[in-house]
Amino acid sequence: MNHISRNLLTLESTEIDLNVFFLLWATTLVFIMQGGFMLLEVGSVSIRNTKNILFKNAFDVCISACCFYLWGYAFAYGDDSSGGFIGTTEFALSDMEKRRSSGENSFAGSISQGHLRADAAFFYAHFAFALSFAATAATIMSGAVAERMNFKAYIPLTVLTVSFIYPMVAHWVWSSKGWMSAFKVDAGSRLFGVGVVDFAGSLVVHVVGGTAALVACWYIGPRSERFGIGGKINELPMQSPVFQMFGTILMWFGWYGFNTGSVGVYVRGDQFEGASRYIVARTAVCTTIAAAFGGLSVVVFDLARNKKQISPQRMNNGILTGLVSISGSCALVHPALAVLIGIVAGIVYSLSSSLLLRRRIDDVVDAVPIHLFGGVWGLIATALFTKESFYNLVYNTPDSQRAYCGAFIGCGKNAGNVLAAALVGLLVVTSFTAAMIYASIVFLENVVKVPLRVASAVESQGLDHSTHFGRAYTELQTTIFQYTTKSG
Amino acid sequence: MNHISRNLLTLESTEIDLNVFFLLWATTLVFIMQGGFMLLEVGSVSIRNTKNILFKNAFDVCISACCFYLWGYAFAYGDDSSGGFIGTTEFALSDMEKRRSSGENSFAGSISQGHLRADAAFFYAHFAFALSFAATAATIMSGAVAERMNFKAYIPLTVLTVSFIYPMVAHWVWSSKGWMSAFKVDAGSRLFGVGVVDFAGSLVVHVVGGTAALVACWYIGPRSERFGIGGKINELPMQSPVFQMFGTILMWFGWYGFNTGSVGVYVRGDQFEGASRYIVARTAVCTTIAAAFGGLSVVVFDLARNKKQISPQRMNNGILTGLVSISGSCALVHPALAVLIGIVAGIVYSLSSSLLLRRRIDDVVDAVPIHLFGGVWGLIATALFTKESFYNLVYNTPDSQRAYCGAFIGCGKNAGNVLAAALVGLLVVTSFTAAMIYASIVFLENVVKVPLRVASAVESQGLDHSTHFGRAYTELQTTIFQYTTKSG
Amino acid sequence: MNHISRNLLTLESTEIDLNVFFLLWATTLVFIMQGGFMLLEVGSVSIRNTKNILFKNAFDVCISACCFYLWGYAFAYGDDSSGGFIGTTEFALSDMEKRRSSGENSFAGSISQGHLRADAAFFYAHFAFALSFAATAATIMSGAVAERMNFKAYIPLTVLTVSFIYPMVAHWVWSSKGWMSAFKVDAGSRLFGVGVVDFAGSLVVHVVGGTAALVACWYIGPRSERFGIGGKINELPMQSPVFQMFGTILMWFGWYGFNTGSVGVYVRGDQFEGASRYIVARTAVCTTIAAAFGGLSVVVFDLARNKKQISPQRMNNGILTGLVSISGSCALVHPALAVLIGIVAGIVYSLSSSLLLRRRIDDVVDAVPIHLFGGVWGLIATALFTKESFYNLVYNTPDSQRAYCGAFIGCGKNAGNVLAAALVGLLVVTSFTAAMIYASIVFLENVVKVPLRVASAVESQGLDHSTHFGRAYTELQTTIFQYTTKSG
Repeated sequence: MNHISRNLLTLESTEIDLNVFFLLWATTLVFIMQGGFMLLEVGSVSIRNTKNILFKNAFDVCISACCFYLWGYAFAYGDDSSGGFIGTTEFALSDMEKRRSSGENSFAGSISQGHLRADAAFFYAHFAFALSFAATAATIMSGAVAERMNFKAYIPLTVLTVSFIYPMVAHWVWSSKGWMSAFKVDAGSRLFGVGVVDFAGSLVVHVVGGTAALVACWYIGPRSERFGIGGKINELPMQSPVFQMFGTILMWFGWYGFNTGSVGVYVRGDQFEGASRYIVARTAVCTTIAAAFGGLSVVVFDLARNKKQISPQRMNNGILTGLVSISGSCALVHPALAVLIGIVAGIVYSLSSSLLLRRRIDDVVDAVPIHLFGGVWGLIATALFTKESFYNLVYNTPDSQRAYCGAFIGCGKNAGNVLAAALVGLLVVTSFTAAMIYASIVFLENVVKVPLRVASAVESQGLDHSTHFGRAYTELQTTIFQYTTKSG
Repeated sequence: MNHISRNLLTLESTEIDLNVFFLLWATTLVFIMQGGFMLLEVGSVSIRNTKNILFKNAFDVCISACCFYLWGYAFAYGDDSSGGFIGTTEFALSDMEKRRSSGENSFAGSISQGHLRADAAFFYAHFAFALSFAATAATIMSGAVAERMNFKAYIPLTVLTVSFIYPMVAHWVWSSKGWMSAFKVDAGSRLFGVGVVDFAGSLVVHVVGGTAALVACWYIGPRSERFGIGGKINELPMQSPVFQMFGTILMWFGWYGFNTGSVGVYVRGDQFEGASRYIVARTAVCTTIAAAFGGLSVVVFDLARNKKQISPQRMNNGILTGLVSISGSCALVHPALAVLIGIVAGIVYSLSSSLLLRRRIDDVVDAVPIHLFGGVWGLIATALFTKESFYNLVYNTPDSQRAYCGAFIGCGKNAGNVLAAALVGLLVVTSFTAAMIYASIVFLENVVKVPLRVASAVESQGLDHSTHFGRAYTELQTTIFQYTTKSG
Repeated sequence: MNHISRNLLTLESTEIDLNVFFLLWATTLVFIMQGGFMLLEVGSVSIRNTKNILFKNAFDVCISACCFYLWGYAFAYGDDSSGGFIGTTEFALSDMEKRRSSGENSFAGSISQGHLRADAAFFYAHFAFALSFAATAATIMSGAVAERMNFKAYIPLTVLTVSFIYPMVAHWVWSSKGWMSAFKVDAGSRLFGVGVVDFAGSLVVHVVGGTAALVACWYIGPRSERFGIGGKINELPMQSPVFQMFGTILMWFGWYGFNTGSVGVYVRGDQFEGASRYIVARTAVCTTIAAAFGGLSVVVFDLARNKKQISPQRMNNGILTGLVSISGSCALVHPALAVLIGIVAGIVYSLSSSLLLRRRIDDVVDAVPIHLFGGVWGLIATALFTKESFYNLVYNTPDSQRAYCGAFIGCGKNAGNVLAAALVGLLVVTSFTAAMIYASIVFLENVVKVPLRVASAVESQGLDHSTHFGRAYTELQTTIFQYTTKSG
């Protein structure tokens, strides 16, 4: 091998180096979103439940890592002989090292470039990135049911989400063999010819987490003091708007990894060389724009109704709904459409938040409006606005089968296919998630005899007292428990 | 095209991949500085104004993204047929996609390497990075005027800063066509032959933000209880030194992106190959050193006057002034000079902070000493210590025109040119910023009838009560409003 | 030079670009660990000592940067004519620029690839990364002795740690000339043929910091109210579990830089091309797994004893012990062994934490169980589980001398050598650190007349009152000082 040949091999190796580095960078950003969730949630609860919500958040990270390592990754990205329903290899990453030592290059995922070591390096990075997504999906529920959920029921529901629900949905939508995946190599066999288009998880992460939150929230019922007689809604104490706000900013920060990292392979060795970085950079810009317009949308919407008061908390929720909504389409739309997606996200948040209150569903951090409703809007927006050329690029569509795009971005024909696939995906994923969570709750309550909800006295005293060695902030004097009332 | 040729093309592509990734990494770091600003500011105000300052900070991020996307970037980095005063293309990034699809490579900025996709990817990343700078400049004022500013006046001033003031100054100093830019391709036409040398924004970001803060702070007057009779200075309540300190650390963290990202193109394909990474790495080291010596300088300075007490808050402000001061010159000086710049920064902070108090200007977070005085020192330090070879490298000076350096780092001739340009730049930028802010305030107060300051009763009760649905921390008992008095 | 040759040169340059970028990314992650330490520590102390602990943490960062720049880096990584005991060049980084301008490529470290500029860029980045490690080692003690240590004694001990203790140990273990280094180019001269195997600092960072903490903690004695009569242990007030928890998450985040960055050179131009990224990606996965299992291990261990209560604080300490324990071996073991290392780490934490209490040693943040005991376990685990091929790869062992591995991972012969070297290293490093700290304390107390401990009245009133211009949170009403008592 002469000097030039060795260097060209090195070039291919350098590309993989860059891909692995890029994915690890994105992984760390998604990881710190867990800190954002934690701060947002603890900021939104009473000081009586501080340690409880902190525990749930940190526990989510730990249990997600354990379960996803042991079997979740296998279910999501393992090889699949089940016709697209579940993966069955890669338990405890066992096959990674085997693949490395055998020199085998194949993988259930869509990527098979590079040489021996490349595979193992890239797949380890891919596991780390995939895990950070699973942990995100698993932690969404924790805030919604805060202040009254029994941790003995919380633990199995988290284990279920990160072990089965999230991995299976990820397998269906994002594995190259998933039955509704847009990554299917044989484009002709994609659902409605396109598969479910969900770039960074409006459906797979947020609708899954949001649906779990809604079912648990509905089943467990509102906090005792939340709803008064005669339609009154009581604003229960929120311990710190600082934590709530900084948590939001930290999640926004992490979302740059969430959305850009979803491109997966940053440097492509094929004819689309240079395309991935273009997608990545545009994705970062679209993410920023949707978040900003989402936040402003809620402020303007609120100011239109109340000219004097602004709620920073609601602005934050608008930002987050913007981020959830752009996740599905961030790589597939123009920045100008990110403006529209963000503005609508703010309105979706505002309306769905009111809807939940009218239905007497008490979601402490508005996880359902943000993740479920924002996720649904994100999925539909993707189906409406996906640009044909972007779709082809992201999903490696062969030339012979290129003719799909969002319903509102005319590409001559088949305009409704992405939307049809999205609606099928939405129906299946929400039904599956809701059924799994509901069945588990019924099983826990009736068979295992672990009630979902703590006793009324425990709730009133705060969960920290009975479950976490006493309440936090013992040096500070607290007020008699208070809340303000407004007409709902 | 044979195998080797394709791979060499790929190599050029890989370089651009690295540039885009580097810029996005830096962008995320600068983004999280917003979290730092937020925590520092909320930590410095009374709990009566918690939600208000949080709102202002998050609003700054959102409105900056919207305005800079729609027109600010166009004014700053759009093409310019106005002779160096303002850009007039790239509104809503419209020309990016157009450029991508047309294959056009030209750009108002100084970079024109790479092929088709490279441009669009790089320019999207450049937009993201530039936006993070604009948001930083816009948010500096918020802390200075905290606890008494009407948010209805705050909003238009922020919009003005991020839409016009910052973009125009950035255009003048950093666009390749700006009238005082050191990036002008025709080096002969640079101001005094060199242009205004401000690598990462001592002038463009910090002096601009600091001047706006000073004008607003001076106009609005001190908080009611800040100054007592007979020259007394009252230390008003600061809600949390933890937030103030952690905010500082977070800003330091983000500053690595701020300063290293300013190199813009990490991998250069020209004869200066390898130079950018060298600049980047040295910049990171200089940043660390100036921050550390800035913080210690204040501690030592204070201990010399009071042997028993140390203020962590003032140490933090010393760190921040060190960071502001090194921004202008971080790529242009030796680390040993960063030591000097940091030490002097601490003294500049200490003296200017006292000066403001003597002049009865009440700057809640010392934004003016840190950003304005620190920025002025940073600009002058750059003019004094810039090394000739570093200048030539950073600003692509053609061989025929290389003979400029800092006043104190003799390069044979023209030693005063960088300083002369800096002083002209400083005079113009401060005058422009001050005039714009002042005129806007007068307009707001007298024409639109929006007063800058809230009513006295509102200030006394706290802004959260009247503007943000009630105060924060309702579960905690508060003391009767107190402050300590010292002789000033 | 023709087109192809220029491009191949460029390829080598691009590899160095990637190495520098990678190291800077890791450096910023390790930097933000300082914010994690700060929050964890301030969350664990009484509000009476808020500013004091904040000051100590920020001061550590600043003084570390100054001392390590001026002389610490020279002692650690300067060239060595002392036979492996201390470096004596690179003071104030003076030789970096000299080397750059002279074109010299040699360096005391193990890396000598690339051309002129590459060296200076890489070595600046290496300095930044090494500094972030030194600051970590220096700050470990601060939490252990919180709430009763005199800052006038704290300052010289920190200066000592970052100037001499840490740099010398780093020189011994990590410099290519260190007497117990596994990086020695002449593999035959490595201690027991292998040197002390400590990939990312279980020994060099954590045992050093933990030993300093133990000596200081033991010498200074417990906080006045910590231990009651008859073996009672009083749980003293902890100001915020939120800060303690978020600090933990932030440290976990930063640990990804700590462990992956320790690979040093991300792209290798030798026959091991592709190996570094593989090590890096696997390291990230092992880090995650050990942290998660460490946290869960403590929860399960605690639940086995008390079926109703869970302490989030102890879970966090389990996470941190897992991170400390995997540091030594993260690049050298399979992920499945990271599970074991994490589980044992949780038990090590739990047992050593109890041991300290029984010995009446009062470590406010459990720094000794986490860093010292966790570090010892990490070092021993490395000696037990290191895989032969990974060792050869990481330490560039020539083919003629490859036959070493962990004691429990049989490689035919020499199975005990890594363990023997580890035990020698452990003995020397702990003895050296303890002796240096102890001698300094005795010198400070008896010669300089600076007592280690503040007066009893000062401790009772809180350090903020006398040393930092009054206590924090003046707006909040505090309870009469309280603590809960449990039988120990």
